[in-house]
Amino acid sequence: MSVIQSIDMDDIYKELKNNTIKIDANGNDISSEEDSGSATSDSIEENENESIEQLKLRSLTRYNDGSVKLRNPYIEQLESDYLYHLSLGSASHDLHEMFGDVKFVCMGGTSSRMKDFAYYVMKEIGHKLPAGTQLQDISELSGRYSMYKVGPVLSVSHGMGTPSIGILLHEIIKLMYHAKCKDPTFFRIGTCGGIGIDGGTVVVSNEGVDGCLRNTYEVAVLGKNISRPAKLDQKLARELMSLADLERDGYETVCGKTMCANDFYEGQGRLDGAFCDFTEKDKMNFLHKCKDFGVVNIEMEATIFGALTYHAGIKAAIVCVALLNRLKGDQVSTPKDIMLEWQKRPQVLVSRYIKKKLRLSHGH
Amino acid sequence: MSVIQSIDMDDIYKELKNNTIKIDANGNDISSEEDSGSATSDSIEENENESIEQLKLRSLTRYNDGSVKLRNPYIEQLESDYLYHLSLGSASHDLHEMFGDVKFVCMGGTSSRMKDFAYYVMKEIGHKLPAGTQLQDISELSGRYSMYKVGPVLSVSHGMGTPSIGILLHEIIKLMYHAKCKDPTFFRIGTCGGIGIDGGTVVVSNEGVDGCLRNTYEVAVLGKNISRPAKLDQKLARELMSLADLERDGYETVCGKTMCANDFYEGQGRLDGAFCDFTEKDKMNFLHKCKDFGVVNIEMEATIFGALTYHAGIKAAIVCVALLNRLKGDQVSTPKDIMLEWQKRPQVLVSRYIKKKLRLSHGH
Repeated sequence: MSVIQSIDMDDIYKELKNNTIKIDANGNDISSEEDSGSATSDSIEENENESIEQLKLRSLTRYNDGSVKLRNPYIEQLESDYLYHLSLGSASHDLHEMFGDVKFVCMGGTSSRMKDFAYYVMKEIGHKLPAGTQLQDISELSGRYSMYKVGPVLSVSHGMGTPSIGILLHEIIKLMYHAKCKDPTFFRIGTCGGIGIDGGTVVVSNEGVDGCLRNTYEVAVLGKNISRPAKLDQKLARELMSLADLERDGYETVCGKTMCANDFYEGQGRLDGAFCDFTEKDKMNFLHKCKDFGVVNIEMEATIFGALTYHAGIKAAIVCVALLNRLKGDQVSTPKDIMLEWQKRPQVLVSRYIKKKLRLSHGH
Repeated sequence: MSVIQSIDMDDIYKELKNNTIKIDANGNDISSEEDSGSATSDSIEENENESIEQLKLRSLTRYNDGSVKLRNPYIEQLESDYLYHLSLGSASHDLHEMFGDVKFVCMGGTSSRMKDFAYYVMKEIGHKLPAGTQLQDISELSGRYSMYKVGPVLSVSHGMGTPSIGILLHEIIKLMYHAKCKDPTFFRIGTCGGIGIDGGTVVVSNEGVDGCLRNTYEVAVLGKNISRPAKLDQKLARELMSLADLERDGYETVCGKTMCANDFYEGQGRLDGAFCDFTEKDKMNFLHKCKDFGVVNIEMEATIFGALTYHAGIKAAIVCVALLNRLKGDQVSTPKDIMLEWQKRPQVLVSRYIKKKLRLSHGH
């Protein structure tokens, strides 16, 4: 088997001939961008090699009209594709009609938070539901995830950990393909433990690292471990940072590396799990090592979220709020009402970005 | 740091002197067992080395009265231990009063299935709720898991994948400790893909293997990968098998190895994910290799479930129903009503075991 997908250069150049696109160093189409102050032709030249890489990636992951193309030759051959964990199917539903207008997919851990976000973003972007209707959990029947649609925004819960969000990413990327969505942007809106930052601080991730501080996501496929780079879109991260405002917000927003652990207790160096074989000193040494490496927060989804969206050529960002400063403790014991207020903060930042983009695309 | 916990032999022998217990080869206390036909003094002698290992394990994980002891010296020192993902705390709740009688903890993926199981097992064991009451989701506030209590049975959802069930296991094991539960038994009641077995077949796992067919669970702790054996209780598996009855049930129940994948698509050799870099032939080769190795089903929790329960000295079993035969396809497309009927099958088997144990302990 070939673990690394081989790139057919003929296919790529055939596509490129039909498709003149301007991209920035991170593979983002800036051909029609109205606010691309940071991407000049100079920066494109400087990053020429990376740009070629990005052109290849784009040709593998987009059709000429910008709609999502899958890096999987088998899906086209399926008579019907049932997205089991979403309770949606390409034969049972008209996915293009239902989801063709989606531009932003926002994911977060719990169902209730993502329902709250759906109603919040609805108010923010001024989306109106027809009289006598309310939002419906589209994936309720699956019992796995909750999904709400507010015009161009999908708000979906992803559960906890890399496998759970991984299943969702596979099915959402396939949904984008079936629905012919054009250049969607994905966000993870989460909670995390901070390293050297206070509870309530918002973190925009610039890359994901695993529990061994590697910037990759590793998974066993057909009995062999393969790893993919856990990259996030740098320009999107910068743009999100530019929308934060300490004075107006009343809380800090920082940017840095995010560690993705596969466990909440031992895997995050907590002393309060069912088991603990290390000392307080071991833990502090490790957390300080992470801090020195540029890690500002720890959660449980960053690597796979970065890896799968990057592999699919999808612009993606992670915005989390820290529930505590791990240099000061392990237990999450902030009162519920304060925690609920904190959990709104990533939603506020991502909504600002969505509002800005929608305003621009409507020419206001 | 010491990654592998060092065993203090003095502590062990001090405890053993105060505590005469008869255990079988798998560390199960059979001192007071009434139906232990399969464990004779012969089998204990044959497995002497293993028995010593099990004595050590028991002394690390049980107090003299059989209540759960944690392999973590720090928990005792905490003023309060908040089980964040369960919305329960040792200071905010009287956990001993609430949960001290729990003997069986049953876990499964979705909230709705575990609610159904709670009501099903209630009927089966003849547990009556006081007039005017109904079951309450104990962990509802957390938004992470759903938990129902029916007398001595806890029914809890665990989400999908090893990290999600791992968080739950840490907190449930701590709950057993705070509640002073005696020798609890854990079950995972799940769904899976079968290898060479028809949809609807029930599988009792005899061990968990990871995506590389290793009988271990690996996780990064303080920047280093540690691995723990993914063992399941052999006697419990045999006992469950003995309660299955093809003629009466109308469906098969088989016993074998369970592969735990960290992904539903590429990680299980499916051709229908958002990405696929291998061929149908690669996939079939891999599935046949798994089959030859004794793997009868694939799911996403077996290794960590086996590893953490074994490390905690807790008797545990996994009973899943196959939703399809992976040698015949990838898509889960069985009609919903048939699937719901199939999902009951592991519940039926585990309920039979619980009923039998409760009858025995009540001397009927």
